[in-house]
Amino acid sequence: MTPSVLDHLHQNFDPILDRLYRFVSIPSISADSTYRPAVEQAADWLVDELKSAGLSQVTKFATARHPIMYAEWLGAPGKPTVLIYGHYDVQPVDPLDKWKTDPFVPTRIDDRIYARGISDDKAPVLTAIEVARAYLAVEGALPVNVKFFLEGEEEIGSPSIDAFMRAHAGLLACDFVLSCDGAMWRPSEPSLTVASRGTMALEVTVFGPKKDLHSGRHGGAVANPLHALTRLLSSLHHPDGRVAVQGFYDQVAELTPPERTAIQELPFDEAAYLAEVGSPQGFGEPGYSLLERNWVRPTLEIIGMGGGYQGEGIKTVIPAEARAKISCRLVPDQAPEDIHRKIAGHLLENQPPGVRVEIHRGEDGVPAYCLPVDHTGLRAAKNVLKAVYGQDPLVVRIGASLPIATAFRTYLGAETVFFSFSTADEDFHAPNEFFRAQRLKDGLKAWTLYLAELAGGETNH
Amino acid sequence: MTPSVLDHLHQNFDPILDRLYRFVSIPSISADSTYRPAVEQAADWLVDELKSAGLSQVTKFATARHPIMYAEWLGAPGKPTVLIYGHYDVQPVDPLDKWKTDPFVPTRIDDRIYARGISDDKAPVLTAIEVARAYLAVEGALPVNVKFFLEGEEEIGSPSIDAFMRAHAGLLACDFVLSCDGAMWRPSEPSLTVASRGTMALEVTVFGPKKDLHSGRHGGAVANPLHALTRLLSSLHHPDGRVAVQGFYDQVAELTPPERTAIQELPFDEAAYLAEVGSPQGFGEPGYSLLERNWVRPTLEIIGMGGGYQGEGIKTVIPAEARAKISCRLVPDQAPEDIHRKIAGHLLENQPPGVRVEIHRGEDGVPAYCLPVDHTGLRAAKNVLKAVYGQDPLVVRIGASLPIATAFRTYLGAETVFFSFSTADEDFHAPNEFFRAQRLKDGLKAWTLYLAELAGGETNH
Repeated sequence: MTPSVLDHLHQNFDPILDRLYRFVSIPSISADSTYRPAVEQAADWLVDELKSAGLSQVTKFATARHPIMYAEWLGAPGKPTVLIYGHYDVQPVDPLDKWKTDPFVPTRIDDRIYARGISDDKAPVLTAIEVARAYLAVEGALPVNVKFFLEGEEEIGSPSIDAFMRAHAGLLACDFVLSCDGAMWRPSEPSLTVASRGTMALEVTVFGPKKDLHSGRHGGAVANPLHALTRLLSSLHHPDGRVAVQGFYDQVAELTPPERTAIQELPFDEAAYLAEVGSPQGFGEPGYSLLERNWVRPTLEIIGMGGGYQGEGIKTVIPAEARAKISCRLVPDQAPEDIHRKIAGHLLENQPPGVRVEIHRGEDGVPAYCLPVDHTGLRAAKNVLKAVYGQDPLVVRIGASLPIATAFRTYLGAETVFFSFSTADEDFHAPNEFFRAQRLKDGLKAWTLYLAELAGGETNH
Repeated sequence: MTPSVLDHLHQNFDPILDRLYRFVSIPSISADSTYRPAVEQAADWLVDELKSAGLSQVTKFATARHPIMYAEWLGAPGKPTVLIYGHYDVQPVDPLDKWKTDPFVPTRIDDRIYARGISDDKAPVLTAIEVARAYLAVEGALPVNVKFFLEGEEEIGSPSIDAFMRAHAGLLACDFVLSCDGAMWRPSEPSLTVASRGTMALEVTVFGPKKDLHSGRHGGAVANPLHALTRLLSSLHHPDGRVAVQGFYDQVAELTPPERTAIQELPFDEAAYLAEVGSPQGFGEPGYSLLERNWVRPTLEIIGMGGGYQGEGIKTVIPAEARAKISCRLVPDQAPEDIHRKIAGHLLENQPPGVRVEIHRGEDGVPAYCLPVDHTGLRAAKNVLKAVYGQDPLVVRIGASLPIATAFRTYLGAETVFFSFSTADEDFHAPNEFFRAQRLKDGLKAWTLYLAELAGGETNH
């Protein structure tokens, strides 16, 4: 059974590649309303693909902006039901002049296929559909029940999916979510991402005089909001890098010694990382390694700040106000609401004399996400990656956030296994995005084995 | 003699007002090259005025941008020679929609005449010319020798006058400078400005990673330049407002007790000032009054700062760099070069870990200026203001800088007496600039008496 599905995929690799090329030729940029027809075209193209693959109930749900696609195959009673998540929209292409090839003319150079959206997330989405197509073509059935849930707004923050999930919780009901989105850590070894950090953002404004003042005529008389803001912001950290906000670390679930050991034992070249980002040295909370600070420790980052004259030369002004934006990355068990309250409290309590401080909550925020270590879907993924690559996958975390996993947990009560064959170095969200052709082959094989594994089938081929 | 000159001015007030209206109708905006013909037109108009007033050697000197006008009357051997300084260029008018009248159609409403440049500096310049005209018409002579030195680049920082003074030091030689520029402190009482603060500016840039990083993916791993900049900038002051840079106050010449008493005894309503600027309270170096902090204490102001994402909403970025501009106001005997060295040293010595700090000198800077208290020209001004207003003028200082006074001292060895009848509340550099018609009358009288006083004449009329 599975071998013949794998043979079928192997023999049909060229047509699959053709379909991928057609998919990535559609400029489905969700952020730019000029491309709305292209996003619609990508959705319609997917309808045809899902239908021709043999899936049922293929439906295009309208949203306020770009459609959500649904399809299913539920012919395996008693077997698990997996909700396959992915997105068909892509990032804008600017700066276009930095692209070496046309972003919507897929161009293969050695093992790399360059195209906007190929890594994030069209090749991974197509991989899942092609595996379903192959099973249905060869065996007339899938090993488990599957539901496809593909959105066209991921690159603009998925504004429609929370409401959609609330409204269609029954339709989307599943044992767990298998995500085509997300990316492996590095191209050199397979990895599974099991945790991500949460977020909480806020803006702070310091108001001084009611209008900009000449810094000569008035300097020394009244408080300068820029001074007040720098004092306020620098009070948020101790000089050694620890966050100085009272209670910021109170709810942090410390890692167990084995968890710390697992991170320490991961192959990670700190010097190579620093060379890549171009920082002279690592810096952050003392007592933790660079990877720990990035993956399992919370941060409070000033992500933007400004006030006064920022043009060329000098304009002698005491500005009426100064602003900053702050974004936190949270870890279990920090609650965004609690952290917001603590930081806002710190800023207001430390309001310097002669100014007024205002806090504006930035966005809702999401808590950190962590997949239970013994999750069935995770165990299956480990087995399959070992079968495909001949080595145990690295179990990694990411410093960024995966709000979709929190949404699935909240609205569907389902955990999420990230099973993408993209790699983090493939320049998604940047010029010259690419996907590795070999990873397409790996992904087709792995998804085939994964569904069989879930059904209790064999994986060693 | 003087009485008949005053009578003549009184009888000819309407033609003088006509000439003022014509002068301010010329949009001589020096900053905008579109207006270059208008600046030239204003210069030519002045040539005609200076000639028709009876002055000699009327010359228009070309510069890289806008001409410098020179004229003289040297028919009083043995009497002092006064260099009369002023400028005929004006500020841009934007925001134009904030003007209640056309900025180049002078409009009188009660005692106020609205027009761009009327207060800064066309009415004061015309006042001086009209007084010379009246003396020459009535008496065929002036009480003292005068030289006019009028520039067209004051509003763009007087880029040509240093070189001009060096090249024409003989032509401009004088006992002291009488400036039409500058403004009285308040409309309610006469005042003389005897001191101004110096300036020194620099820019600081903090470099972190070589490119902007995602604050989730990388947060916690490397130093954030925004954190480093806020720490660095907040280290420049103690929380109580004192500058924390080592040696910043070392060269400050402390005021004598009588000087402090003189400032304390000035009528100054701190609450009214704070209401006007809209600050909730005064703030600055402890141990000094608000006026002292503004006039006789040095300041270190952050005048601009920025980095990261400053647009709407949130963009989670650790920026590659962050920048700030700093401008100091200096007092006697602080040297701009010394203060620059100390601040730059402080910033470099306190460079936070994981980033690189660069300093860029902003401009040359000027030392503070202070007119000797026993200066002949100052004594004459006090006598004349008492004669005109019936009360002793307030002796005041300004927090801003008067680089022209430093330039006259440097290149001509001459002190500067500021004798303008503009008032600081007349919205120069802002929409709806105006000048008080009564002040035109006061100025004509005062300048007439001043020249006579200098020659040793009578002032009580």
